[in-house]
Amino acid sequence: MDASRVRVVQIGAGTIGATIARLVMRRADLELVGVIDSDPSKVGRTLLDVLGAETTPLVVEGDLSAIHRLAPQIVTHSTLSDLALIAPQLEAIVSAGCSVISTCEELSFTESLDARRIDQAARASGVAVLGTGINPGFVMDRLPATLSSVCEEVEAVHITRVVDTSQRRRQLQIKTGLGLDLATFDAKRAAGVIRHVGLPESARLVATYLGWKPDSLVETIEPVVADRDLHTDSGVVRSGAVAGVHQTVACFVDGFERIRLNLWMAYGVRRPRDEIHLYGSPPVHMEIRGGIFGDSATAGVVVNSIHSVLGLTPGLASVLDIALTRAMAGRRPGVERK
Amino acid sequence: MDASRVRVVQIGAGTIGATIARLVMRRADLELVGVIDSDPSKVGRTLLDVLGAETTPLVVEGDLSAIHRLAPQIVTHSTLSDLALIAPQLEAIVSAGCSVISTCEELSFTESLDARRIDQAARASGVAVLGTGINPGFVMDRLPATLSSVCEEVEAVHITRVVDTSQRRRQLQIKTGLGLDLATFDAKRAAGVIRHVGLPESARLVATYLGWKPDSLVETIEPVVADRDLHTDSGVVRSGAVAGVHQTVACFVDGFERIRLNLWMAYGVRRPRDEIHLYGSPPVHMEIRGGIFGDSATAGVVVNSIHSVLGLTPGLASVLDIALTRAMAGRRPGVERK
Repeated sequence: MDASRVRVVQIGAGTIGATIARLVMRRADLELVGVIDSDPSKVGRTLLDVLGAETTPLVVEGDLSAIHRLAPQIVTHSTLSDLALIAPQLEAIVSAGCSVISTCEELSFTESLDARRIDQAARASGVAVLGTGINPGFVMDRLPATLSSVCEEVEAVHITRVVDTSQRRRQLQIKTGLGLDLATFDAKRAAGVIRHVGLPESARLVATYLGWKPDSLVETIEPVVADRDLHTDSGVVRSGAVAGVHQTVACFVDGFERIRLNLWMAYGVRRPRDEIHLYGSPPVHMEIRGGIFGDSATAGVVVNSIHSVLGLTPGLASVLDIALTRAMAGRRPGVERK
Repeated sequence: MDASRVRVVQIGAGTIGATIARLVMRRADLELVGVIDSDPSKVGRTLLDVLGAETTPLVVEGDLSAIHRLAPQIVTHSTLSDLALIAPQLEAIVSAGCSVISTCEELSFTESLDARRIDQAARASGVAVLGTGINPGFVMDRLPATLSSVCEEVEAVHITRVVDTSQRRRQLQIKTGLGLDLATFDAKRAAGVIRHVGLPESARLVATYLGWKPDSLVETIEPVVADRDLHTDSGVVRSGAVAGVHQTVACFVDGFERIRLNLWMAYGVRRPRDEIHLYGSPPVHMEIRGGIFGDSATAGVVVNSIHSVLGLTPGLASVLDIALTRAMAGRRPGVERK
């Protein structure tokens, strides 16, 4: 054990969890002291085996109570989007005296009872809890908030994120309905299965940040229909079937639409990007070409936030409470260029 | 006097100073209690007269010692770029117990003796000092730092700002050599007259932030030559004469170029923009179309930083020490769109 390094336990050994764990291991200022996942097919296996991580004797543990023995200062947590399902877990972690950074989208901005219990438990233990990621956590909330700092006044905020799922993991393609017929899409949408979580949270973060009190949020979820046959790794998706999903949130303040969020996630969608319009003085129109790549960037955001979260006032925080966070600076000779 | 509002004195009643003062007056959370400028042609005149500000009985005062009577909590300061010339002023202000936000470019990152004296005086008085603006202060330092928070690792940072001076005030056109012949440009460059201040400061901010220790900074200043006759408000600039300036800074770390800053400021230059490349994992390529408009945005950055600076640990800070800052949220019915 090296006292100068922050002790980190990763909970969740899925795609994002594995990426976070590998990044923690690469950082000289952090020490990965454990990985916990409830999946019996992963428990007891080495990190090399489960995560492709090469330089650790750790094995995946199955029982959350291991954190008492592992005694991390902070838990990075990447399991589910549904706060109600993970709230007891988070309460147990903070009650054990560990701060938490979770990719749970619903945790990024919430006033639910679950969140209040987590907040109280964190205050009682003197630790902080943050929900973050790329979306929510950056593209549609922290980044427009940062950009707004150059405006005298902001009249409206429009944000569009376009994700080409052909460049992303199969899991995201399935989550966004790829290949479904429209009737099945409708049924899954009605069941709440097809829905990226986090847009209302981002809209509320931006509104709260700028000082707007929303009257209402209006959310829509529509299929993106393939306008050509799509030749995917898992077979052909015919023209007319579902290629992905288009979600919007409109946020009204005193009857006027002040915030509009647009999220397109579809296979082969044209011109993937993150685009932010701040209508104000001066206006700001920003685009990130190709969009921020969600998987490695989520790991980046989570791991880069560790020191900031350890410095926060105890309780449940939001991404707008934390100061700037820093990435690792390259040390390797030569520079990768794209 | 309204105790809930922050008392602000603006020092400097030039273009930027006037914009700052007008914005302070529009904010419900701030109170403009005085404007000071040493220019005898402005002293004694009303703000309506000098700034176009309409709702205040204040007159421009000529003597810095007025701050003792005006007793602001913070001074917004917008006079000169040369820290050596304003250092005694800043020392006097902080010694009077006022925090300071200055647009002095050299104050944005410095380890000079002047800066150390200001830092000591600020600590002794329990107040904070910040140098900020758009460039330096945002486009080439704070914004790339914010974007880097999504990267696992950053290998190199390239930033380009292209400013079309035909859209900006005459003063900036003159400062960037518009209409000069090349020999005169050379002479003025040699005399240090033609040089936008702040690129090395931004490079050092980014390097320090990411944890790189620069071996050396290499700065270049070259004329941009008009490739066509330019019909300006102040006459025709012939093809072959100077249209503006191109400045670069390259920052080397362990022999490798890690940071490259490019600033083009020229009359009629094509595709004005702010562009940031972070080479890393994931790579980030951001563009702000048209570029952030410097004048109103500088006022925005300065005024939006007031609450953050009042919350800082006493001493000389940098833009990387302050948390997110917020603009005014629009309250007017209807939304301006461009």
